Amino acid sequence: MPPNDPLRIIYLSPVATSESDQDFADMAARYKNPSSEVHVVSLTEEDGAFSHVEYRSYQGVMTRGILRVTREAARDGFDALAIGCFYDTALEDARELSGEMVVVAPCHASIEIASSLSNTFGIVVGRRKWVPQMRATIRGYGYIDRLTGFYEAGLGVNDFQKDRVRTLDRLLAAGRKAIEGDHAESLILGCTDEAGFFEAMEGELGVPVIDPFVAALKRAEYGASLKRSVGWVPSRKWGSQAPPEEELRRFGGLDGPSAIGNRIVLLADG
Amino acid sequence: MPPNDPLRIIYLSPVATSESDQDFADMAARYKNPSSEVHVVSLTEEDGAFSHVEYRSYQGVMTRGILRVTREAARDGFDALAIGCFYDTALEDARELSGEMVVVAPCHASIEIASSLSNTFGIVVGRRKWVPQMRATIRGYGYIDRLTGFYEAGLGVNDFQKDRVRTLDRLLAAGRKAIEGDHAESLILGCTDEAGFFEAMEGELGVPVIDPFVAALKRAEYGASLKRSVGWVPSRKWGSQAPPEEELRRFGGLDGPSAIGNRIVLLADG
Amino acid sequence: MPPNDPLRIIYLSPVATSESDQDFADMAARYKNPSSEVHVVSLTEEDGAFSHVEYRSYQGVMTRGILRVTREAARDGFDALAIGCFYDTALEDARELSGEMVVVAPCHASIEIASSLSNTFGIVVGRRKWVPQMRATIRGYGYIDRLTGFYEAGLGVNDFQKDRVRTLDRLLAAGRKAIEGDHAESLILGCTDEAGFFEAMEGELGVPVIDPFVAALKRAEYGASLKRSVGWVPSRKWGSQAPPEEELRRFGGLDGPSAIGNRIVLLADG
Amino acid sequence: MPPNDPLRIIYLSPVATSESDQDFADMAARYKNPSSEVHVVSLTEEDGAFSHVEYRSYQGVMTRGILRVTREAARDGFDALAIGCFYDTALEDARELSGEMVVVAPCHASIEIASSLSNTFGIVVGRRKWVPQMRATIRGYGYIDRLTGFYEAGLGVNDFQKDRVRTLDRLLAAGRKAIEGDHAESLILGCTDEAGFFEAMEGELGVPVIDPFVAALKRAEYGASLKRSVGWVPSRKWGSQAPPEEELRRFGGLDGPSAIGNRIVLLADG
Amino acid sequence: MPPNDPLRIIYLSPVATSESDQDFADMAARYKNPSSEVHVVSLTEEDGAFSHVEYRSYQGVMTRGILRVTREAARDGFDALAIGCFYDTALEDARELSGEMVVVAPCHASIEIASSLSNTFGIVVGRRKWVPQMRATIRGYGYIDRLTGFYEAGLGVNDFQKDRVRTLDRLLAAGRKAIEGDHAESLILGCTDEAGFFEAMEGELGVPVIDPFVAALKRAEYGASLKRSVGWVPSRKWGSQAPPEEELRRFGGLDGPSAIGNRIVLLADG
Amino acid sequence: MPPNDPLRIIYLSPVATSESDQDFADMAARYKNPSSEVHVVSLTEEDGAFSHVEYRSYQGVMTRGILRVTREAARDGFDALAIGCFYDTALEDARELSGEMVVVAPCHASIEIASSLSNTFGIVVGRRKWVPQMRATIRGYGYIDRLTGFYEAGLGVNDFQKDRVRTLDRLLAAGRKAIEGDHAESLILGCTDEAGFFEAMEGELGVPVIDPFVAALKRAEYGASLKRSVGWVPSRKWGSQAPPEEELRRFGGLDGPSAIGNRIVLLADG
Repeated sequence: MPPNDPLRIIYLSPVATSESDQDFADMAARYKNPSSEVHVVSLTEEDGAFSHVEYRSYQGVMTRGILRVTREAARDGFDALAIGCFYDTALEDARELSGEMVVVAPCHASIEIASSLSNTFGIVVGRRKWVPQMRATIRGYGYIDRLTGFYEAGLGVNDFQKDRVRTLDRLLAAGRKAIEGDHAESLILGCTDEAGFFEAMEGELGVPVIDPFVAALKRAEYGASLKRSVGWVPSRKWGSQAPPEEELRRFGGLDGPSAIGNRIVLLADG
Repeated sequence: MPPNDPLRIIYLSPVATSESDQDFADMAARYKNPSSEVHVVSLTEEDGAFSHVEYRSYQGVMTRGILRVTREAARDGFDALAIGCFYDTALEDARELSGEMVVVAPCHASIEIASSLSNTFGIVVGRRKWVPQMRATIRGYGYIDRLTGFYEAGLGVNDFQKDRVRTLDRLLAAGRKAIEGDHAESLILGCTDEAGFFEAMEGELGVPVIDPFVAALKRAEYGASLKRSVGWVPSRKWGSQAPPEEELRRFGGLDGPSAIGNRIVLLADG
Repeated sequence: MPPNDPLRIIYLSPVATSESDQDFADMAARYKNPSSEVHVVSLTEEDGAFSHVEYRSYQGVMTRGILRVTREAARDGFDALAIGCFYDTALEDARELSGEMVVVAPCHASIEIASSLSNTFGIVVGRRKWVPQMRATIRGYGYIDRLTGFYEAGLGVNDFQKDRVRTLDRLLAAGRKAIEGDHAESLILGCTDEAGFFEAMEGELGVPVIDPFVAALKRAEYGASLKRSVGWVPSRKWGSQAPPEEELRRFGGLDGPSAIGNRIVLLADG
Repeated sequence: MPPNDPLRIIYLSPVATSESDQDFADMAARYKNPSSEVHVVSLTEEDGAFSHVEYRSYQGVMTRGILRVTREAARDGFDALAIGCFYDTALEDARELSGEMVVVAPCHASIEIASSLSNTFGIVVGRRKWVPQMRATIRGYGYIDRLTGFYEAGLGVNDFQKDRVRTLDRLLAAGRKAIEGDHAESLILGCTDEAGFFEAMEGELGVPVIDPFVAALKRAEYGASLKRSVGWVPSRKWGSQAPPEEELRRFGGLDGPSAIGNRIVLLADG
Repeated sequence: MPPNDPLRIIYLSPVATSESDQDFADMAARYKNPSSEVHVVSLTEEDGAFSHVEYRSYQGVMTRGILRVTREAARDGFDALAIGCFYDTALEDARELSGEMVVVAPCHASIEIASSLSNTFGIVVGRRKWVPQMRATIRGYGYIDRLTGFYEAGLGVNDFQKDRVRTLDRLLAAGRKAIEGDHAESLILGCTDEAGFFEAMEGELGVPVIDPFVAALKRAEYGASLKRSVGWVPSRKWGSQAPPEEELRRFGGLDGPSAIGNRIVLLADG
Repeated sequence: MPPNDPLRIIYLSPVATSESDQDFADMAARYKNPSSEVHVVSLTEEDGAFSHVEYRSYQGVMTRGILRVTREAARDGFDALAIGCFYDTALEDARELSGEMVVVAPCHASIEIASSLSNTFGIVVGRRKWVPQMRATIRGYGYIDRLTGFYEAGLGVNDFQKDRVRTLDRLLAAGRKAIEGDHAESLILGCTDEAGFFEAMEGELGVPVIDPFVAALKRAEYGASLKRSVGWVPSRKWGSQAPPEEELRRFGGLDGPSAIGNRIVLLADG
């Protein structure tokens, strides 16, 4: 692909409600690089789309859909895929068969940013249920020593956008506990559905507040740009080896009609 | 269930070939507690069954089937489920919705045993591909400091049972490297399809060699017995919370006809 | 030994009061596998038996007695020995000279169980004195990341069985602090003398509560069954090497009349 | 600053030879984003510039110059500063007084990229001298578990560009040791003066080879773009607090004429 | 040097106020070994001396001065140098070019002592600003598991000696929080300017309270005595290699007139 | 005790052969501070003295004797006790009841010294048997990241002093493996019976070689001097609490005639 062509990014939301797709597309339109083409897509219902993914078992079901979208996006020549769930659902699995496409996810993307702007961060979650899985993920990423803790807003995924005044209050209260109680120097919002609050929180609290949707989108652009301008694509050596195409076809588990249920396309400017 | 009724164990092999099911059933018949009832089952082809699960993406596809079997087994009153893959595929996910059934897996079961019999263990794998995922798993379990390393036999999952003389030679060579080179005090076979070699290896090498199939089966019996005789069943608090049944039905992703494709039943004696 | 003979388990209580021996025997009778033969024994006074082992120095003194009983039990053909103190006193030392007998201890046994039933556990201790040693032990076992903390009941070992109503109140209060304050998903009672309370606590608190006496007993049965039905016995390679018998005799420090002061035998059924 | 103005990046090389400045400028011209303005600068001799920084003590001397350039660049409205030494010399110190400017460095930038493209990476260094400091840095960053090791080319910093054929041979030999011997899935070049070899190495070895100069440059652009398009600037809370300006003036240690000795400016396109 | 000659110790205070130099000299006179000769020195203003070093950037500036004093002291035949700042500023750098002189610093020295007298310690700091850098240092030293936390007195470095009654009150309150709240078994004062309070605190709190100035001084004497009576001097192998003298002269950054601004000499007795 | 009275040090060798006692006394005479009074003692045969302590179980038996000597030494007003075995046998236990006497041990003392003189160290052991226990100890101390590994001389404890030429050859070969193969910057001899070789090794290998006997002796003097000149004695708070004297008497396990079998006294000079 010619280096001056737009970077092509696909943002996959495991959640599939028409509202959330549009919300993400609106956010993407605001924060994307003008020269990026961004596709905001969600899974079909057959592939496990649901209004939230708070449970491990829901993620387990959606994994197959995420993998099928990964293959489709790689074949379609996307430069980078962002998996839109703060659990970083199926990130390692998707990386295995992404070909030359870079795969990123919001938790890791947010932590990289927060760590470059502060010594420690706190994560604002909706419910305590989420914590052990997220903590294990962050430990696996190697950033556990920078984490001051998890702070509950007492809201489920589907509650965040219902009463936004209440949500902001709850997020601010949780954030203050992190900052004043545990000396967090920055905050990360621990759910892509907490989108749209970070700027108000920054104004109120005076520390960086990382929005995981924006972090994942920008990290995808960064990875895509490294691929396109420098040539850095995923390793396929040793543990990064992909299944042989021939075997994948025999396996069959990733075939079938497109797993993309909904798609909103934001073209590059100009 | 009356405490004197047989312990009811289900061993789920993500791999689905009629040979391997029967092999596992034969092993189970030999090693199970006489008073246990053991069901050896494998997934349907629709649920992702394949002749091996060497890739993350294959595991990702099978996860839904494993979860569906978990729900079915819990409803059917099994005391314990063993997930028959050394990657411990979907162990955490399955535990989420196992109700009062205990869920175990071969990697963790093998490590617990090896650690009670020796200071350090080496893991004999088929191919280097497997290593990073297994290493991360063992690090997550907290046993990384006892691991001397991974030692490749240079065989894929489907090769182990083809030429058993060659396989034994390869496993012995890898095991010697662990023991003599890195001072492993015991060995673990890193694939349930490496079944049937551990006793010959012990005779040759003079250290405990843990067979992951046997380890998972016996750990399931142990967990089942703790449940039945002491009453210890999974926590459902905080991060161990299961999705509400009502929501699971709306979600739908785990419904449908049985995910069990093949079943061999070993009844309790007497 | 014929595989159908009863599993032979020895439970060694470093504490030696006639009441506690009988209490443990009663618990064992209730929770043991019907086909196990269990000997509940305690040390002679000459070997350091005392009414509690809250101090490192007391454990240091009892270690010789524990080692002498280990040798005696191994010679007598026991399949597994459980060392009945939550400090897991002398576990590593006893393993060195247990021959083909498996050696287990309550702290490790309890943690294995709690970790298979929940993401995190809290430990209810009697006094703050115990904490640094136990924390170091659990760190050495690799499970520190699952530990939410230690919670004091404010009672010494000898107090637990004095006023059981008060004890239960204290244990419940400590357990609630773990669950509600630090989000523990299960509890472990951090002293074998906290025996007899776990079921009442489970009823009240709604999470698994692991009794260390029961855990050690059942883990001994599990280890014994692995030995008898699968043939897995301790490694004697490298760091697991035992002293040569001939040298042990010259050393002499482990000889002398039996270190077992009291013994209650529970025969296998039938 | 209007969001459409070019991102303004400053790359500070602690090393100061006219050749290396120009080499870096040439690399920057090739890899920078067209819409970025990049200043490649080096320290004055008074501020400790030297032909290499292989020793901790040389870095110690250059720290003051790096800090002075940081202050100057922040005042001049740069969006991001890259510190051009793989030791990430003075990264934390410079972050303290960078105001709203983002500060990045090559080791951390390279690791972030390598970790998104592979499970493990090896680092090719010039001399063994460098290793303990770099290992401690990577441990502090939390990525030690992904590092397979350090592999020496047997060349000092000033040797890399002398005989480029020999250098490439040495780098390839070291890289092969990482990949074949220790199963590294990607490589990182552990010195900004190893610039200009990564593409040839990728062609030969078939794994991603991260050039630290390019990584630092692109990470600076990424940080700058997060600042400009999202508003994410460094935290100034708790440990991230900067010295008060008034006190800095009294301190005086960072004042004086510009610490920038040489400057090559690459303007944004168009 | 003849073994019976006095040990020659140099204590370098990065802070340079005439009061503090004299205070340290008075403390040294009280606590030094009678047979040691101790020079208490501070940096010249040109070398970055200031009334406190609470900021990373101030330390960065002073590093050059610390390195120049290190070289001067090594040339003058001192046996050991103590760097008088609890951040252990430039400890690793100074060790690189100390020749046969041993270099120590207060944080590490204090931790070694506290760890030999207790299981856990808390550190009393002036301001929260200091914590992330100190925590990272202690993690690097390997002692993080013994640290109960940091406890703020709410005072800057320059405040400690202003109103000593208030300071003692604040230190006691912070210490009580460590002991009663987090079960610290000993305390460390986290700033050399907290000097002169430890004995009053010990009397009040009943646990060891480690004064970092005294710890550094005594550790320097200990290192000097190991050098003189046993011959143990710094390694110069691999990562401990020093820059070649010839290159150091070309580098020039460490040359110039003495960096010692003030010097108080305490001779050995007799 | 008047501060000018000699420091009183007791060095307890768990091993009890008249040769080794005298050897240690000769070493002590050479390396002790002139103003220290040093008692080199060994255990009575009744208390478990033997010609070596290579096994955990031997250490377990000797622990009671070590504890009894600790109590006796504390009562006799010694300032510091060194436990003369590189396993640091019973260090934590002895500290519990040492009153105001400081207790040290050779492994920890050696590591502190090596870490102040180099980035990494290798440990030369006699046999592979020793390694897992020592590795766990060093991990517990927090220094595992500085350890390059263990290097076997292929000699048991009782072999070291038999043929000193052969021993030196073996130690040098093991040391070279550490330095050249694994880039150790210093060495530690992993057995007090490896005494008397360190200087020859330093001459040959050019790195610091820490003798554990000397390290323990000097660390005891250092601890004693901190006690006498600064007043720093062991904490008795929380986990450092000692058993009550009254209870110790009832316990009885530490009473009886002196556990000291042999004693060589080295008086202070003058």
